[in-house]
Amino acid sequence: MPHEVLALLNRPSMDAAEHHPGEPALTFADAAVAQVNVLDLGVSRGDGIFETISVGNGKAQALEHHLRRFARSAQMLDLPAPDLDAWRQAILAAIEALEPGEEAWVKTVMTRGVEGDGRPTGWVYAAQSADFSRVRSEGVSVALLDRGYRHDVEQTSPWLLQGAKSLSYAVNRAVLREAARRGADDVIFVSSDGFVLEGPTSSVVYRRGNGIYSPGTGLGILDGTTQANVFVFAQSLGMTTGFERLTPAELAASDAIWLVSSVRLAAPVRAIDGVERPVDGQFSSALNTWLKAVFV
Amino acid sequence: MPHEVLALLNRPSMDAAEHHPGEPALTFADAAVAQVNVLDLGVSRGDGIFETISVGNGKAQALEHHLRRFARSAQMLDLPAPDLDAWRQAILAAIEALEPGEEAWVKTVMTRGVEGDGRPTGWVYAAQSADFSRVRSEGVSVALLDRGYRHDVEQTSPWLLQGAKSLSYAVNRAVLREAARRGADDVIFVSSDGFVLEGPTSSVVYRRGNGIYSPGTGLGILDGTTQANVFVFAQSLGMTTGFERLTPAELAASDAIWLVSSVRLAAPVRAIDGVERPVDGQFSSALNTWLKAVFV
Repeated sequence: MPHEVLALLNRPSMDAAEHHPGEPALTFADAAVAQVNVLDLGVSRGDGIFETISVGNGKAQALEHHLRRFARSAQMLDLPAPDLDAWRQAILAAIEALEPGEEAWVKTVMTRGVEGDGRPTGWVYAAQSADFSRVRSEGVSVALLDRGYRHDVEQTSPWLLQGAKSLSYAVNRAVLREAARRGADDVIFVSSDGFVLEGPTSSVVYRRGNGIYSPGTGLGILDGTTQANVFVFAQSLGMTTGFERLTPAELAASDAIWLVSSVRLAAPVRAIDGVERPVDGQFSSALNTWLKAVFV
Repeated sequence: MPHEVLALLNRPSMDAAEHHPGEPALTFADAAVAQVNVLDLGVSRGDGIFETISVGNGKAQALEHHLRRFARSAQMLDLPAPDLDAWRQAILAAIEALEPGEEAWVKTVMTRGVEGDGRPTGWVYAAQSADFSRVRSEGVSVALLDRGYRHDVEQTSPWLLQGAKSLSYAVNRAVLREAARRGADDVIFVSSDGFVLEGPTSSVVYRRGNGIYSPGTGLGILDGTTQANVFVFAQSLGMTTGFERLTPAELAASDAIWLVSSVRLAAPVRAIDGVERPVDGQFSSALNTWLKAVFV
């Protein structure tokens, strides 16, 4: 069985026509062969959406949450609504076709399609995951970087697409290069008015006493699928969970911090802007074991 | 001769290896056939750069300015430096292969390439232009929209890539949909601290008395190739030209305003946020005639 699987959707949205009328809903293709037109707005304008989903022992994790968020991103970009049944089937078929393994990942991409064509382009790509065991135990050093936006732009200026998972991720990549220049592994974004937001591909969660918290909603940040599961785990241990708007100083005063995301799962933060901080190894280990096994 | 031409570069940058060792520098391809890998960071992350160049009667306009800006965008994104000689040759070859016509356009795209591969992907696409005569005379109505960033983020937070022409243009598309919802044709971005910036695919220029001005440099906006030529035209008429940081109220008090860009050239602004304003038809006409013919 293959190490990677690419499946192309014939009809990513019921609001648009099939690409190949009468053909099957899903076609497996060679990921090494070009599949995207140069005039596809996904590549010419970064105009599309995606989700990256963890696969644990052959099961997609937080699948329905990812699908809901995919639909919400589509809405924020005024894209045709994804046919979630078709996408769910494509995700499951790609996982089934993939060589079995303990940890894998699936990425769904829907673009606005070729300019003027009116049909979104959609595909699902699945592959085995890299080994993240070291980063899950030893953690990451992070740089705090200005995202440039106030914390409330999602409400005041929705056209800035904050909170949507779009293909326009050049800034999310540029901040990792800036972090590397500063000797850090990852980034926590701070709003221009001084609030902690999220990582470029992760949510921030932190422990204070017997509570697990996250900067939460309404800040133009993603509704984290892994963050939601971290809360479920914490609640199962009788811990308090909640969302708080907080400053970097307040974050630094917490007992432990993690960047949590699909695929990499929970990476403890072991330094912020060069200042070392305690890593809660026991909680990290239990959390990652639980996240690897969770099927909600 | 074809209505559209696609040419793929074998070696977009001398800092990276050829895609097809020993093969020609340029390959013509069918633009209707997929040419981009789903794992190309250009589509998966909007991680790449572009330029769109006017072609007037078979001649690329402001070519060296576009190439300089392409190289600057690459630098801002930490991409390998484009081999400007190879790009220039590709642009000229694509124009030569295109069916002759009065007005055409060429787009250059360089992406970071397939993740982990290390070789940027590069292509040039050329096609005949649409007929913009009506918009050049009648003008556009614009909505002022918050860009969310302070005017100085290019200096304080270069990782936000303001001033680079990147493929991550989902916001530049979203603002046009927001403008349409407001009954407007186009957009002028305003910084979060209240300064006029640029359009999503154009520069703002305006006339006050015998002077032609633009919001100018250092504001995280593009170094406009057409704006530069507008200044050359104005200077040839003995007019003053210059850059000014200004507010929307100051802009509204000017005698005439244009959104200027490659391909569409100078579109007079006939309304801002629903308030009609004078269009300088005579200057617009002379300017567009000159811009269509210019070869610098």
